[in-house]
Amino acid sequence: MESLLQRLRQFRDERNWSEFHTPKDLAVSVSIEAGELLELFQWRPDTAPIGDEVKSAVADEAADVLLYLLMLCDRLDIDLEEAAHSKISRNERRYPIESSYGIARSRRKF
Amino acid sequence: MESLLQRLRQFRDERNWSEFHTPKDLAVSVSIEAGELLELFQWRPDTAPIGDEVKSAVADEAADVLLYLLMLCDRLDIDLEEAAHSKISRNERRYPIESSYGIARSRRKF
Amino acid sequence: MESLLQRLRQFRDERNWSEFHTPKDLAVSVSIEAGELLELFQWRPDTAPIGDEVKSAVADEAADVLLYLLMLCDRLDIDLEEAAHSKISRNERRYPIESSYGIARSRRKF
Amino acid sequence: MESLLQRLRQFRDERNWSEFHTPKDLAVSVSIEAGELLELFQWRPDTAPIGDEVKSAVADEAADVLLYLLMLCDRLDIDLEEAAHSKISRNERRYPIESSYGIARSRRKF
Repeated sequence: MESLLQRLRQFRDERNWSEFHTPKDLAVSVSIEAGELLELFQWRPDTAPIGDEVKSAVADEAADVLLYLLMLCDRLDIDLEEAAHSKISRNERRYPIESSYGIARSRRKF
Repeated sequence: MESLLQRLRQFRDERNWSEFHTPKDLAVSVSIEAGELLELFQWRPDTAPIGDEVKSAVADEAADVLLYLLMLCDRLDIDLEEAAHSKISRNERRYPIESSYGIARSRRKF
Repeated sequence: MESLLQRLRQFRDERNWSEFHTPKDLAVSVSIEAGELLELFQWRPDTAPIGDEVKSAVADEAADVLLYLLMLCDRLDIDLEEAAHSKISRNERRYPIESSYGIARSRRKF
Repeated sequence: MESLLQRLRQFRDERNWSEFHTPKDLAVSVSIEAGELLELFQWRPDTAPIGDEVKSAVADEAADVLLYLLMLCDRLDIDLEEAAHSKISRNERRYPIESSYGIARSRRKF
């Protein structure tokens, strides 16, 4: 993830776009791109097979979400990878294997 | 990012949650978490300073977005990091430095 | 819808909240509430029956989406009901009955 | 709102689209359209003036949000207008004028 971040910073700074990238606008952008990602699944039954064309579009939109997420975290000096590791650790404690096995709870955090 | 993915797969498989994780529901989840991330900036002026408490909440929600994004990509055999690198390369060509310097275009992709 | 709008304006003005309600923040709020609405369907199969408790929660979140949408339109002097009628008229022309009957197109606008 | 609903039902039934309109997909659609609405404000400072072209685009996207919201509520036998009135009543009790006057609380529900 570090090399992505390096390239993103260079991209942004070479174009002098940093001033437009307020944290709020970057959070707005994450949300917009997440909506575009979701649009690829609109009207598709849960179980519909997903062809190569859709996969490639998902890769594209997922990349946009990640890039804005990285820029947001960079602006706020957040280490996204570390935050994600902490979150997994917390979820491991919150959902012990024994009591969580195979149980679909709605509103469950992954 | 690879070690995150390893931990996520183990977390999911130890709890047998894979069956609930349809690509569509993972895309829905990315979008929900992006909304929770955005909520941290609701009613805040663009220029408002961001304190440690909000930063910590941002780290938390950003992690949720990333984790669902990784699980979605994993389900579809998408290499998210590679997709993000391709996207940056495309954006470098799309927004040449000379013609993009300091120009805020609305609807611009980062 | 007119009586909703009257009550909303009075509610807002009695509390002097108008200054916080920038169009951008109201659009952000619509999106956040739409995410909370969506969360009620997270991890539910398409065909799962929807009980009274979920229905009541949907009514609640749908109301939030509508109220922010109305406040946004009010700020920009947009007549939401008229805009919706125009949209239906446009969709009637765009999707003629004969060629649209029973055809699920993904990315179709309703 | 009743006449909108009548037209929407007719539009949907003449095209036999009802089967595609699962509550989940309609909630997904509300969220996608809310993202498109938000996109109109991306990279705009809070205080930027909003021209006629943007206003017209806002009217258009706001209409999409409302139409999916109405269809979702119709599917679940929810009276959206009534739900919105109940919500305002609840908010009147929750945010008494005296203690809420001019106070911007983040995470405040309108």
